Amino acid sequence: MRVVVPFATVDPKTRLSGPLDPEERREFSRAMLGDVLESVREAGGEPEVLATAPLDVDTPATVDDRPLTEAVNAALEPETAVVMADLPLLTAETIEGLFETPGDVVLAPGRGGGTNALLSREPEFRVDYHGGSFLKHRASASEIGSVGVVDSHRLATDIDEPADLVEVLIHGEGRAVQWLREAGFSLVRTESRLAVDRAPDGR
Amino acid sequence: MRVVVPFATVDPKTRLSGPLDPEERREFSRAMLGDVLESVREAGGEPEVLATAPLDVDTPATVDDRPLTEAVNAALEPETAVVMADLPLLTAETIEGLFETPGDVVLAPGRGGGTNALLSREPEFRVDYHGGSFLKHRASASEIGSVGVVDSHRLATDIDEPADLVEVLIHGEGRAVQWLREAGFSLVRTESRLAVDRAPDGR
Repeated sequence: MRVVVPFATVDPKTRLSGPLDPEERREFSRAMLGDVLESVREAGGEPEVLATAPLDVDTPATVDDRPLTEAVNAALEPETAVVMADLPLLTAETIEGLFETPGDVVLAPGRGGGTNALLSREPEFRVDYHGGSFLKHRASASEIGSVGVVDSHRLATDIDEPADLVEVLIHGEGRAVQWLREAGFSLVRTESRLAVDRAPDGR
Repeated sequence: MRVVVPFATVDPKTRLSGPLDPEERREFSRAMLGDVLESVREAGGEPEVLATAPLDVDTPATVDDRPLTEAVNAALEPETAVVMADLPLLTAETIEGLFETPGDVVLAPGRGGGTNALLSREPEFRVDYHGGSFLKHRASASEIGSVGVVDSHRLATDIDEPADLVEVLIHGEGRAVQWLREAGFSLVRTESRLAVDRAPDGR
């Protein structure tokens, strides 16, 4: 299975600007990308990075500087999956679950209504990632065929905001969690959920 | 399968005090409980409410006013599942997935490191819901037997905070989403994820 992984090469993950400086955001986003590519390969998929600017990566890569929706639609062919690069909780098993879910279009919702991964077996399907894409994709896909939905916390957990780092520290097993730990991040208990702390001497 | 559903009868969901007044929080938490009980029944489970104070509910209920951990441990027997009452995204399929996951102890993590559901087939297992219970449960369970983990966005999504209401409006199919809609809540698009809005004339 061909798996397109969109990646913002320049100034990635701006909503993590509080805890991470620009160079750290670049490093952390590359670590997350590495986790995603490895999970795809372990699941038997063939990853292709779809980058906004050239990058040095050990995977076939295409550069397309158009907005995400246009770039993905240009890369979309039948039997193509699209998996976001900021999903460091993914495992080979999660990706296999995506590949094996029946449906002309298979969608994996992200927290907050995005579409973190999809698989199109239908040539007419087009993506539209602007605001609340899961509900839009489900509606448009259901007009042209059957729709499968993958229920996965690992697929739903894209890392955009500081609070999301907690999930990496709890469930991560690859490069991204290792990067966070080396940078001094650790879990702290709050009254309700876990939160993150960063040691002053981290990296 | 016996399924214990802990429920805070008095002053529930205090972290929703911003958007909901006390009576609304009572109604909404009862709607979520109803969704959970129905999903358990549809999956062939036998739900038992474990309530902090008497409540009028169409399901066998026990009252235990001790803290959650003590009350659940008193109710725990082998072949018992514990499913939280604030999981309105649950479906019969999700609960079946919990029942069918192998392991002496099966855990379903909640966002932020809690344990939203578990299934114990091991008489020695005890719960401890204080701060970050998923990692503690996984560690203690692995000392006494095999551990299964359920990867489910529906099980991971407990509704505690205003931002969580978005997930109910996107994925909910039962009483809780109906209650929110009747109370005037709807989805609005923000720059990144979806958010909720409430109409001034809602309920």
